[in-house]
Amino acid sequence: MNAHTSAPRPRDRVTVIGGGVIGISWAGLFLAHGLDVVVSDPRPEAKDQVLAGLAEIAPALAELGLPTERLTARLRFEPDLAAAVAEADVVQENGPERLDVKREIWRTVEAAAPAHALLATSTSGIPASAIATALRQPERLVVGHPFNPPHLVPLVEIVPGERTSPETLLRARDFYASLGKKPQILRKEVPGFVANRLQAALFRECVHLVAEGVVTEAELDDIVTDSIGLRWAVAGPFRTFHLGGGPGGLPHFLRHLGRAMEATWPGLGEPSFDEPTVALLTAQAEEAFGGGPVGELAARRDRAQLALMRALAATADGRQAQHGQREQPAQHGQATA
Amino acid sequence: MNAHTSAPRPRDRVTVIGGGVIGISWAGLFLAHGLDVVVSDPRPEAKDQVLAGLAEIAPALAELGLPTERLTARLRFEPDLAAAVAEADVVQENGPERLDVKREIWRTVEAAAPAHALLATSTSGIPASAIATALRQPERLVVGHPFNPPHLVPLVEIVPGERTSPETLLRARDFYASLGKKPQILRKEVPGFVANRLQAALFRECVHLVAEGVVTEAELDDIVTDSIGLRWAVAGPFRTFHLGGGPGGLPHFLRHLGRAMEATWPGLGEPSFDEPTVALLTAQAEEAFGGGPVGELAARRDRAQLALMRALAATADGRQAQHGQREQPAQHGQATA
Repeated sequence: MNAHTSAPRPRDRVTVIGGGVIGISWAGLFLAHGLDVVVSDPRPEAKDQVLAGLAEIAPALAELGLPTERLTARLRFEPDLAAAVAEADVVQENGPERLDVKREIWRTVEAAAPAHALLATSTSGIPASAIATALRQPERLVVGHPFNPPHLVPLVEIVPGERTSPETLLRARDFYASLGKKPQILRKEVPGFVANRLQAALFRECVHLVAEGVVTEAELDDIVTDSIGLRWAVAGPFRTFHLGGGPGGLPHFLRHLGRAMEATWPGLGEPSFDEPTVALLTAQAEEAFGGGPVGELAARRDRAQLALMRALAATADGRQAQHGQREQPAQHGQATA
Repeated sequence: MNAHTSAPRPRDRVTVIGGGVIGISWAGLFLAHGLDVVVSDPRPEAKDQVLAGLAEIAPALAELGLPTERLTARLRFEPDLAAAVAEADVVQENGPERLDVKREIWRTVEAAAPAHALLATSTSGIPASAIATALRQPERLVVGHPFNPPHLVPLVEIVPGERTSPETLLRARDFYASLGKKPQILRKEVPGFVANRLQAALFRECVHLVAEGVVTEAELDDIVTDSIGLRWAVAGPFRTFHLGGGPGGLPHFLRHLGRAMEATWPGLGEPSFDEPTVALLTAQAEEAFGGGPVGELAARRDRAQLALMRALAATADGRQAQHGQREQPAQHGQATA
């Protein structure tokens, strides 16, 4: 914002590898926070796609209260990867989800980037440990996995590889927190990390219930937004059961209702995406969502979500209901280190 | 509100069976909507408990925009069940979750209530089919399962027994909708209904991830509120993946990512509430939530949730993001009938 003052604070220079949907979203967030951004993508059409994508998300960034007037003033494109990371303080990689490709990318980055650079991959499915075997300094690489889209959803999962250093984890946490994100350091590397595992567990049962004809997709969606979705936006699953356990809280719930819930688990569905199931889900999706362009539906959803985020931020109750007594983010890192 | 106008509209007379937490919440909602309410509970302490409970939830009812000044003016207590339902238009039963008890209650109600009365049980776990074998007119009984607390969470699952009539389902839907709830008629009786099955599926993985030491309860709760919770408050799981599938929507997602998600399902956890797990979950709950009385935490959560509901209601985007093109609730019933 004050790029021309006499003593500008040092700004992070961030290299965003990959100009797809995730890369664009990260780039937009970084730029709106005043960082210098280099986007590196070998595809000739990448530059136009990134500029179009930034124009599309600019309104959402503005609704987050970020300045977007000259969003691309500090944006540069550099298709050559080694050149793109040569002066980077932070590298956020959003390349294809293929281990061989990621290894090749990171080998190049490690050789060309400054020794102090934070090295983070947005991967949702490849463990840092698997990529880091290609590196001389595996302790530098960490997963910084956003929940799509990164500029809008608060969570960033910071997932260590087997050899990621505590310093790298804390630095990643501080970097994402400085952008207004809600980083969470996981204590162990686990396939799918946390949010996507939870999403997959719930979606599995969703597919089962629709395939069994208990509800349609649209009906199930309404059930979720009108009950557990609303609940979990304010208080997570453990807190929700704690508050539902009466005066005895979660311990009471576990002692008195835990066995009953456990008894229901074997009865949950184990569907598969076989042809009839995919055909049914596709037909229902076309009926329920087919009326308008996805982009417009997504923009509406994003505006509604921004309204929720503002409502939560405006109530001390909201933040306290979500985060309880734990006000010091430093605790997370200490517990992990 | 206008109880003394010369031509009052006919008011439903509702009998609430059981003066526990769920019964109190229903009674408060019914009273705030101007209905005549009889609470029937054989316990001598029930009356005091109900009055205290109503006083506790009155502020939340007021925040919903409902009149609460003379909330108990149309409230009556009648411990004798047959007498309590003798003039009922609607019976909402919240008795103990035991099949033999529920059968006995409903046998009495069927014999004593007017022939036109809507008969609904709040049960979360007992199928209407199993209760209705005790009735001469099983087509009259339906599950009207609220998500706790009924006065606050919009969802009511309307679940048919094998012999529940379509007329009963539609009447239940209209009744709950008239109270501002979001009723959803399920197309089939299934154990746990829908919302609790989804909750159980997700919570199973939550327990697994905490038991495995990937995250603490408090960390997992933050992950949920900062990602999937926020998402699902605005758009359910199918719509979320539809909007995440790019221009091709959910069909594209299913074709390209369905198999990848399916491959993750066998790796999801299968924990049990054995002693070490319960001990760990209890210890973490005490650390995370132990600081204050559950009632105060719950009140905070409820205020935050009300703020979200108001934010959603205030944006056309919110309702459209949630409910899409389907604006006619009548569709649900037609599809089910």
